Amino acid sequence: MAIVVQKYGGSSVGTTDKIKKVAETVVKRKKSGDDVVVVVSAMGDTTDDLIGIANEITNNPDKRELDALLSTGEMMSSALLAMAIKALGYDAISYTAYQIGIKTTGQHGKSLIDDIDGENIKKSVSEGKIVIVAGFQGINEEGHITTLGRGGSDTSAVAIAVKLDGMCEIYTDVDGIYGVDPRKYKDAHKLDEIDYEEMLELSSLGAQVMHSRSIELGQKYNIPIYVGLSNSDIRGTVIKGVNSMNMESKPVTGLATSDEDVAITIKDIENDINTVSSLFESVASKRINIDMISQTAPVNGKVNLSFTIPKVDLNECLDIIKPFYSNKGQIAIDEDITKFSVVGIGMKTTSGVASKMFKLLSENNIGVKMITTSEIRITCAIRQEDKIKAINAVAKDFNL
Amino acid sequence: MAIVVQKYGGSSVGTTDKIKKVAETVVKRKKSGDDVVVVVSAMGDTTDDLIGIANEITNNPDKRELDALLSTGEMMSSALLAMAIKALGYDAISYTAYQIGIKTTGQHGKSLIDDIDGENIKKSVSEGKIVIVAGFQGINEEGHITTLGRGGSDTSAVAIAVKLDGMCEIYTDVDGIYGVDPRKYKDAHKLDEIDYEEMLELSSLGAQVMHSRSIELGQKYNIPIYVGLSNSDIRGTVIKGVNSMNMESKPVTGLATSDEDVAITIKDIENDINTVSSLFESVASKRINIDMISQTAPVNGKVNLSFTIPKVDLNECLDIIKPFYSNKGQIAIDEDITKFSVVGIGMKTTSGVASKMFKLLSENNIGVKMITTSEIRITCAIRQEDKIKAINAVAKDFNL
Repeated sequence: MAIVVQKYGGSSVGTTDKIKKVAETVVKRKKSGDDVVVVVSAMGDTTDDLIGIANEITNNPDKRELDALLSTGEMMSSALLAMAIKALGYDAISYTAYQIGIKTTGQHGKSLIDDIDGENIKKSVSEGKIVIVAGFQGINEEGHITTLGRGGSDTSAVAIAVKLDGMCEIYTDVDGIYGVDPRKYKDAHKLDEIDYEEMLELSSLGAQVMHSRSIELGQKYNIPIYVGLSNSDIRGTVIKGVNSMNMESKPVTGLATSDEDVAITIKDIENDINTVSSLFESVASKRINIDMISQTAPVNGKVNLSFTIPKVDLNECLDIIKPFYSNKGQIAIDEDITKFSVVGIGMKTTSGVASKMFKLLSENNIGVKMITTSEIRITCAIRQEDKIKAINAVAKDFNL
Repeated sequence: MAIVVQKYGGSSVGTTDKIKKVAETVVKRKKSGDDVVVVVSAMGDTTDDLIGIANEITNNPDKRELDALLSTGEMMSSALLAMAIKALGYDAISYTAYQIGIKTTGQHGKSLIDDIDGENIKKSVSEGKIVIVAGFQGINEEGHITTLGRGGSDTSAVAIAVKLDGMCEIYTDVDGIYGVDPRKYKDAHKLDEIDYEEMLELSSLGAQVMHSRSIELGQKYNIPIYVGLSNSDIRGTVIKGVNSMNMESKPVTGLATSDEDVAITIKDIENDINTVSSLFESVASKRINIDMISQTAPVNGKVNLSFTIPKVDLNECLDIIKPFYSNKGQIAIDEDITKFSVVGIGMKTTSGVASKMFKLLSENNIGVKMITTSEIRITCAIRQEDKIKAINAVAKDFNL
């Protein structure tokens, strides 16, 4: 008899009717012989509604108290799901983070799960109960309620699966992971499986299907994570460790784009490693995330230095870098940036992916402004008007 | 520097604007030099709304899960009030029942507070923080969340005041305790003070200003409880131990009426103590509360036995007492019952209260169907149409 940890997102438990539907699905699984632990998000837009109420009180709510407030959303949905299951004649029990000892560290609003006691879950499961856990929350060393950040219930589910050595299934409103966003490319293929690293890259590049931390945990403890629709015959996607040496594996698994960045260029800056590193340190100290970096060849000991940052941080960043240039003419800001990335663990063993991609872009008259690469990804900055053309060309050729 | 425990009811924290108003009141008190601990109820109709949602899931929600659900209402309001106080520049912290160890015993939905750890409250108070506690809830021996029953936040507040050896102030939507309900008698007097026992009798007789258990706790530990409007110059009422030997004290402090009962009469039942006690035991075993009892003088070894029970229990009660009569003609049901009670600790030392009351009722042509008395109360069952006449006559004569 296996233990399965299922997570249902906010849209799956958005109404009492939907909660009853989830209860039926869970009971069906229990009847099939598996022990079931369910992690739930808050109903529908509850979290946003609670943030709205907090903002009526003050436009800068205390973070500890905001976490205390937001955690109630998942407490409600977990109690309601337990009621719904009991009403079907099956034994169930809901638990808050405190009751099962979900211990967290780090800041309010984006805490990390450090450990889970889990004895109460194990005891209840051994008594035949279906256990319902309030997702998204934990208790820190000081006994304060903390939350894990948007999408954090995914991480609650994976962490519990790790603790119980169980399977993990994430039920959401998409039917799986696609190589490219089906809203942007109509012929997109759904993946049967995807490697943890690929999924992490895609998540960080803007494919917001899963909470990144949940994938890191799955990878660390080698827990496969199924992602798909609940109560459906449509097969979803398994996130797992994929052997990159597999000859069958495609060199490129996924494609992601993001319009959230802006490029800053400082012209004629000293070609001096101390100057450049001091600039990047100043920016990083304000927690502004620099992604792509490029530099021209030196002319008379001076270079042009370009880098991208999130658009929301532009004004703060310009303040920080003021000491590094003497007049405004030295600064160029390019907001017409789409980050266009392809990801694939197969790149580790397949050469020529980059050259093929640049050839495709060039054939389609798409100019590349900046480039960065990692072992399993290639990212280009292109013009936003070229985005759809680039998606179509690359997705088709790489069969995504 | 005194510690004051203030409780704000659901209507006082019914909107975010009202919560901000409470925050200002609390901060004003803190500025005046007192340490302040605040117990809050859920915002406005939140508890009823949550019950409504539970009833959409099932018409008989599991009691443990219902408690888990309902407890979130007070968690929300306490976090919001803490935010509002911090936004005013004062330090505050919200606590759930778990975080301050409010230990309960007994059934879900009507648990009793057994003890409070309270160390976290004391520590936070000593750090200068205003402490906000989620009322109405506790944690039982098994670690489950329990609730204390409607109005239970009063009891949370008194119990915390006991633990901290502080003062207790209950802020509500009435400006104090009246000798008779001002909605029923326009000349009603507000009381400056009332004895715990009198308040308990009035509460059990239908004057639902306070949670009964809170008054019992106040009495047991001799903690005076102030009841009144918040942020107002209108002086409320103090519930405390009043010396019944005080010559100034009135013999009757309060008057209460209730239309929630029904009288059952069994005619020609054996005048046999075993039969009668066995009947009452059967009824009590189903937790049906028998209040007034009367019995006619025996004729040929038979008596007529009458008693009142809550209307809602009528059908169940009739089933239970079937073995005690042989035909339907033996049973009479009287739904036209108002329980009319006067209460006063002064009755212990003042004679003639009963005779004066019966004289007043008789002068006003009000028939009395049944009578019960205790050391500090007299209750008559009268016809419902006589209720207002009886209130006017008795309230005026006893100057209530």
